[in-house]
Amino acid sequence: MKKISQASASKIVLLVIDGLGGLPDQQTGKTELEAAHTPNLDALATKSICGLSEPVGPGITPGSAPGHLALFGYNPITFGIGRGALEALGIDFNLKPGDIAARGNFCTLDKDGLVTDRRAGRISTEQNTKLCQLLDGLEIDRVKIIVHPVKEHRLIAVFRGDGLNAGVSDSDPQQVGVPAKDITALTGQASRMADIANKFIVQAKAILVGHHPANMILLRGFSQRPQFPTITEIYKLKPAAIVSYPMYRGLAKVVGMEILKTGTTIEDELETLKQNFSHYDFFFIHIKGTDAAGEDGDFDRKVALLEQVDRALGSLIDLEPDVIVVTGDHSTPALLKRHSWHPVPVLLYSRWCRPDRVSQFSESACILGGLGRLPASEIMPLAMANALKLAKFGA
Amino acid sequence: MKKISQASASKIVLLVIDGLGGLPDQQTGKTELEAAHTPNLDALATKSICGLSEPVGPGITPGSAPGHLALFGYNPITFGIGRGALEALGIDFNLKPGDIAARGNFCTLDKDGLVTDRRAGRISTEQNTKLCQLLDGLEIDRVKIIVHPVKEHRLIAVFRGDGLNAGVSDSDPQQVGVPAKDITALTGQASRMADIANKFIVQAKAILVGHHPANMILLRGFSQRPQFPTITEIYKLKPAAIVSYPMYRGLAKVVGMEILKTGTTIEDELETLKQNFSHYDFFFIHIKGTDAAGEDGDFDRKVALLEQVDRALGSLIDLEPDVIVVTGDHSTPALLKRHSWHPVPVLLYSRWCRPDRVSQFSESACILGGLGRLPASEIMPLAMANALKLAKFGA
Repeated sequence: MKKISQASASKIVLLVIDGLGGLPDQQTGKTELEAAHTPNLDALATKSICGLSEPVGPGITPGSAPGHLALFGYNPITFGIGRGALEALGIDFNLKPGDIAARGNFCTLDKDGLVTDRRAGRISTEQNTKLCQLLDGLEIDRVKIIVHPVKEHRLIAVFRGDGLNAGVSDSDPQQVGVPAKDITALTGQASRMADIANKFIVQAKAILVGHHPANMILLRGFSQRPQFPTITEIYKLKPAAIVSYPMYRGLAKVVGMEILKTGTTIEDELETLKQNFSHYDFFFIHIKGTDAAGEDGDFDRKVALLEQVDRALGSLIDLEPDVIVVTGDHSTPALLKRHSWHPVPVLLYSRWCRPDRVSQFSESACILGGLGRLPASEIMPLAMANALKLAKFGA
Repeated sequence: MKKISQASASKIVLLVIDGLGGLPDQQTGKTELEAAHTPNLDALATKSICGLSEPVGPGITPGSAPGHLALFGYNPITFGIGRGALEALGIDFNLKPGDIAARGNFCTLDKDGLVTDRRAGRISTEQNTKLCQLLDGLEIDRVKIIVHPVKEHRLIAVFRGDGLNAGVSDSDPQQVGVPAKDITALTGQASRMADIANKFIVQAKAILVGHHPANMILLRGFSQRPQFPTITEIYKLKPAAIVSYPMYRGLAKVVGMEILKTGTTIEDELETLKQNFSHYDFFFIHIKGTDAAGEDGDFDRKVALLEQVDRALGSLIDLEPDVIVVTGDHSTPALLKRHSWHPVPVLLYSRWCRPDRVSQFSESACILGGLGRLPASEIMPLAMANALKLAKFGA
């Protein structure tokens, strides 16, 4: 791809509706997308080539990171990224080479030391911020520990010092009624890291003892900032991300996108697109609400949000990007209340897309689309081809 | 494949309609293939299993070599072949081990030494032949340079001698208004080759000085003859190629096909098939005109040529091959006037093919075919299976 990609004036917009795919309501037989009134998406699908995208592989339910990395054209199995590193990048924390980041939760321990709430009653971000100040800046064996709040009960702990290695287990037991786990080295080089992390947790527990319900922390996902080839290196694009939620900003940064300031609604995001349309040739726009509605099991809210996206779509189409891709990073059916393995509807519009006969943007219609069932990581090469940004391969 | 392939009496015909796939005309919404009246192809499609073939990968526009190598069952990314070697093979030039072949053009230089026409006004093949005689047989530093005409303005230059290496750059600047480039060594071993090639070009320029518009040559694609396992080694087939255009003869030779003498029309080629049908068990038939019509942006001529192929098809079907495959090496939409990345319709007929419900040989119909969207390199194993030439895998 590096050899055949070439810069040009054409523009690509990748609109990711998080958790887009769904499952049919048992009464109506319609998925969230099928129940939603989406005339703009349907009209666009009619002019597009459609299909169903598989982010990681058949039957595999993707986390947000692999789901997005696949859409950015990276093999999500080869290009792994730790949860701690991702969370750090998402709050604009500048992870340095050698830093090890862990994702943390404030949690509640009972008097026997058992975890009773892994999220400490979802304390407020303000409370979180105050508690993080108590923990921030400790130094253990010449390693500095930087603790920053993320949102509600979530935090990051970054270990900065010599000789650290991310190959350690989590302390988060992922269930209640049990104690937190000891952190153990998973490789021989990680014993110093495990030792320091355990010492840090002991000190943190002592500091938090009077702060019920947030009287302890759980750590997981110890990891370094990954070194991926960037979108610019691979595709010679000048890419921008329009994203309101921290983790997705982090993902966009890892692949070298510039992060544009934007608001929290789809209308804000599309206004940001309009303002910056002439300055970049690739835009990643992320819509989070649909995934949250799916995870909450709120079918009707997900339908309403899809309709909101559809109404806002006109302002995107009016900009006349050369290529428009609309898809999701994974499915989040309201019926399942979680991410799922189901492939995700995708439409790719360009003047050169060779439209199929799909005239509705939905799971059942996209089955018969010209893209078939395709790995999500193939979408980016297809978008590049449709933007006429790929040279011929071979003589 | 080598382990499970077995020789048998059954016969396979692979009919490659170059540049077969297209894009819909904006008035009618029909592609070239959809606009063409093709009753024989449609009837064959009805009895066949159909799909859309992807020569190299999603979004990748194939050159002719990777497009054909994929159809012959070779991974076109692993099995690369240089343009010079290909062109040499295509004019039946016997490239020896150690020979380095370059593809060349006669071109026009202005008085300032700038290229004004990369094709020297497409001089006639006769004129080309005379000029090549002037250049042929020079010797520089104990390397003999053999120059042969190909067609119109195209030639090959073969460098024969010790210590040569193909790792050099092109002199062809691929644009006009600039001078020809110096040839440079891309690896340490190639400095002798670069030096001799540059000296040759200086001598050639001196020889051609009075022969405007063909007063210079441009060289590119320095390469050796590749060593691929043959079709016979892999599939135990006795293969023949019925091809009128040099490059495709070269490709067929590289994979070990015997080249049959034939004429320039589809009717000539099918007559050659008939005459030789009992002597081989695999036939590759190549039809060039469709690609040329697509590259010329001549939608109607491509339609007419597809209808001509359809009319001629009866004589192929009358021979009752056990397996008939009809497809293209890539798409060449008249709207784009060049090769493209769009997948190519494919039909595979055999008594054992398990037909799908596709009853029209077209891009939009083949989307719903039983082969789905498949890599072109999977067609050959499927043809072998349908000819009952593959043993069971595993106990």
